[in-house]
Amino acid sequence: MEFEPIGVIRSSHFGAKGTPLQPRFAEGCRGTLELRPGLAEGLMDLEGFERVWLLVALDRTAFKELTVVPYRDTRPHGIFATRAPARPNPLGLSCVRLTGIRGHILDLEEVDLLDGTPVLDIKPYIPEYDAYPDARAGWTEDESVRRAPRLADERFEAKP
Amino acid sequence: MEFEPIGVIRSSHFGAKGTPLQPRFAEGCRGTLELRPGLAEGLMDLEGFERVWLLVALDRTAFKELTVVPYRDTRPHGIFATRAPARPNPLGLSCVRLTGIRGHILDLEEVDLLDGTPVLDIKPYIPEYDAYPDARAGWTEDESVRRAPRLADERFEAKP
Repeated sequence: MEFEPIGVIRSSHFGAKGTPLQPRFAEGCRGTLELRPGLAEGLMDLEGFERVWLLVALDRTAFKELTVVPYRDTRPHGIFATRAPARPNPLGLSCVRLTGIRGHILDLEEVDLLDGTPVLDIKPYIPEYDAYPDARAGWTEDESVRRAPRLADERFEAKP
Repeated sequence: MEFEPIGVIRSSHFGAKGTPLQPRFAEGCRGTLELRPGLAEGLMDLEGFERVWLLVALDRTAFKELTVVPYRDTRPHGIFATRAPARPNPLGLSCVRLTGIRGHILDLEEVDLLDGTPVLDIKPYIPEYDAYPDARAGWTEDESVRRAPRLADERFEAKP
């Protein structure tokens, strides 16, 4: 199945090392999404949403193994039981904060994506559809994970 | 960018008409995800999660316009300000309930996906990363939308 990027991320994260693992850990990290100008009409009424989902291509990761030791644990888990970026299909899901729209440019905060990341879709974050604050969350509920690093390292990065 | 399906949805939804718009409106709708058997190792430790994100290819929609009248409103909005399925890249995001895993088969509830939908990725739902219950949600907060239909119709379906 083929998909074409609709835009690109501009951020101050230039490599995995030190990049926040999720928007939740990316306070103060600003960036933009430069949409293809011809698609700007598709942003109408998006300003009313506080957050947006970005579906992105994790283009600097290399899928190797079906079990991985994720950033926040020392034990291996199945890749589909983690949010690790080196996946069979390198698709990323990021719930960033939308602070403004200028034509085809989206101003974002809490950005956890590398500069240059290709964006495949933008969806509004709708709590009625997306927020399940009490859902059980398996191994990530362990106390050791709660205390673990919140920044990435190079373990899943493709070698240039 | 090319992606290969990792599995397929089996559900009792055979066409858009009458299919719940989101898992939130799909109580009682059971289904399965048949993962490619060679990927089953990637499911290790997923059972501990109550919900999973499915990233899917919305393979029976036809993208036509950058502004659409979505199912739950009578006014047009930019496609990126809606969850309508006929998108520039037809990627769907569905937060289903995981009730069991049997080898390479995932048992699901609250399924809003059509039978035969190709699945591109599975991610665990982690409230710390995904739940923002108080995020402002633009036009979807209007009282008329709250009262609007919760089932799809044929407006975004590709003509065979």
